[in-house]
Amino acid sequence: MSVRSFYRIQQKPVCNAMCLGNAMHITASVFINDNESGLHADYDRWLEQLAPFDAGSDPATGGYLHNRTGEDNADAHHKRQIMGREVVVAITDGRLHLGPWEHIFYYEFDGRRRKRILVKIIGE
Amino acid sequence: MSVRSFYRIQQKPVCNAMCLGNAMHITASVFINDNESGLHADYDRWLEQLAPFDAGSDPATGGYLHNRTGEDNADAHHKRQIMGREVVVAITDGRLHLGPWEHIFYYEFDGRRRKRILVKIIGE
Amino acid sequence: MSVRSFYRIQQKPVCNAMCLGNAMHITASVFINDNESGLHADYDRWLEQLAPFDAGSDPATGGYLHNRTGEDNADAHHKRQIMGREVVVAITDGRLHLGPWEHIFYYEFDGRRRKRILVKIIGE
Repeated sequence: MSVRSFYRIQQKPVCNAMCLGNAMHITASVFINDNESGLHADYDRWLEQLAPFDAGSDPATGGYLHNRTGEDNADAHHKRQIMGREVVVAITDGRLHLGPWEHIFYYEFDGRRRKRILVKIIGE
Repeated sequence: MSVRSFYRIQQKPVCNAMCLGNAMHITASVFINDNESGLHADYDRWLEQLAPFDAGSDPATGGYLHNRTGEDNADAHHKRQIMGREVVVAITDGRLHLGPWEHIFYYEFDGRRRKRILVKIIGE
Repeated sequence: MSVRSFYRIQQKPVCNAMCLGNAMHITASVFINDNESGLHADYDRWLEQLAPFDAGSDPATGGYLHNRTGEDNADAHHKRQIMGREVVVAITDGRLHLGPWEHIFYYEFDGRRRKRILVKIIGE
């Protein structure tokens, strides 16, 4: 999901500000990169290499201790550290001040439960 | 160390703000994830795989050039990049606006010298 | 490039504030770490291991789907996720509030086109 235009929810534009956007959940990421489907398929494969899904809980066979809590989403907690929790974006003249190819994305690595993103704007 | 409740140091609550928390040291991280001991043991093992400790300074045998400065903490500078330097957290109605499972952690990858975390709050 | 002293561009110091510095480009990073040349050579080698350059577009042989767009910089989009897009630094008494060894760096992973960094300061 690209949320490049979420600033339109502002009734009265904030002119000079910072906008924080963060995942409120610890198996998810908000980050900025390219809006190109091949790249996102590349990320998917790459993150699976760096932190493979394994429902097991024995580190000797590739499992995660975290999964002894009854979860099977330990890999998601790892993938989120690579991609990051949050972005802070400048607002100038009432608009998100993004570079020409910057798009904001939300990645969900777990997929369970209802999820929320927090957007906070501080400024004038 | 979980510092979820560090906002209580505010005498007069800041009602609508952003709170920056960052490690002031370059071999440490402040990040947000789950307060579950198994996960933190998983992170420890995972970071050691991605950036192994090696006191040597010869890249051909797994060492780091940085260790030619007399340090042996090059791996710590790498681990910190994976986990991140800082978090920015919204403050709403005088409280840190965290998701249900979000906890703030400080990781120390080197362990030498006295360390500090910076907390800065900007808002109303 | 270390930009530790970029706050000097302020004519009138901002006394109590947050300073956002971010790459405006999605194959670049702004991050904080040590100003030591060996470490940066180590990062270069490490990032190449984690996300190797490959101009190809066949994942089966180490290529990236993103390169089917005519680019050959998919690895740069991956390296930037490890090193991060942005830093948020406190400003106290009119100066960047950095730890003793903190320096701000810009990494360019692609090298093409003219690039810009955004610096935004919000505060009093």
